[in-house]
Amino acid sequence: MKIAVLGTGNVGQTIGAKLVQLKHDVIMGSRSADNEKAKQFAQQHAAANGTFAEAAAQAELIFNCVSGGAALQALQLAGIENLKGKILVELANPLDFSKGSLRLSVCNDDSLGEQIQRAFPETKVVKTLNTLWCGLMVNPQRIGEGDHQLFMCGNDAAAKTEVMKLLNTFGWNPLHIMDLGDITGARGMEMYLPLWLRIYNTRKNGTFNVRLIEEGTSNN
Amino acid sequence: MKIAVLGTGNVGQTIGAKLVQLKHDVIMGSRSADNEKAKQFAQQHAAANGTFAEAAAQAELIFNCVSGGAALQALQLAGIENLKGKILVELANPLDFSKGSLRLSVCNDDSLGEQIQRAFPETKVVKTLNTLWCGLMVNPQRIGEGDHQLFMCGNDAAAKTEVMKLLNTFGWNPLHIMDLGDITGARGMEMYLPLWLRIYNTRKNGTFNVRLIEEGTSNN
Repeated sequence: MKIAVLGTGNVGQTIGAKLVQLKHDVIMGSRSADNEKAKQFAQQHAAANGTFAEAAAQAELIFNCVSGGAALQALQLAGIENLKGKILVELANPLDFSKGSLRLSVCNDDSLGEQIQRAFPETKVVKTLNTLWCGLMVNPQRIGEGDHQLFMCGNDAAAKTEVMKLLNTFGWNPLHIMDLGDITGARGMEMYLPLWLRIYNTRKNGTFNVRLIEEGTSNN
Repeated sequence: MKIAVLGTGNVGQTIGAKLVQLKHDVIMGSRSADNEKAKQFAQQHAAANGTFAEAAAQAELIFNCVSGGAALQALQLAGIENLKGKILVELANPLDFSKGSLRLSVCNDDSLGEQIQRAFPETKVVKTLNTLWCGLMVNPQRIGEGDHQLFMCGNDAAAKTEVMKLLNTFGWNPLHIMDLGDITGARGMEMYLPLWLRIYNTRKNGTFNVRLIEEGTSNN
């Protein structure tokens, strides 16, 4: 599939490399067409690169890997027409460190996932993967034999099924992907981040996730 | 130990009954001395009951089981002098359903745990247990052989050790209790609630918790 990866940071690089490895046509999008990181990525991975708009225009499916604070603006640059009718896998977190300590720039009554869905009403926004360090996003088998939870939400059921299939090729067992319903589920998924970061600070290591334990869950 | 349980709802009843079972002297506190639920509880469990202030005054350790929206006021009624120097196990969540859908009445830059610690600076506030359905608080063995995570935070290390010992008698393995540092850890613990509630709505069942999966976690 032709897939755009918007954002050249760790998350974009990790997702992009995995998609190339899975034989997708990847185009990495960035603010400017001559972004060094995007050019290097394209050379190293036999992928393409271009502006946010060029990447989105060519792609059938788009990953938003731009950091939370810059995501809405990057998607505006990608262009509402270029995103129309397409699946946008949204994995940014609205983290704001500008005041010294962590806070979310949006939470409680709203979420970044919802803001993006409202700004791009004809795009099928699927929020997922945001509750994990990027190394685990593309390699869930790295811990607990892959048996831990991934959350997902979005308004379009068919889009969620499509993204689940793609995540399956990343190594995610569909049984471990929990559909939390419509895009308002992004509130809980994003508001989990302060706990995630506190655990990270305690462990000094991001290679962790949570497994849901329920009645009837085997301990084996 | 002489322990006060403030609040006569499900959480207070569950915690209170467990403490009685563990042979503690329990006094259930409520707004009025003739609260019917508190009187019934006292009769059924050979415990005592009284006002918030009477309960707090007599106790060596206090559980705040009053719901989030009413917690600060209930603790004011309990009295700053009656809480002074004592451990307050704080397990309320600042859930606000008044606007139709769930929101937290405080989050992001602050938390209920911190508000309580600020209001009662000489009380040793230990936030814990708030991420669970009350049936699991006192019976972690009910799922996953008790191998799932409990979070804790607070400014006083000795108080946290004391509460850990008490939770150990509830069935919590100290290895599964994660100390998230000072009371600002309450932000993450409380902001997890929207995700908890979304999972609850998906499962229609509160009998679940999360287990931390890390590198080196055995799947057995």
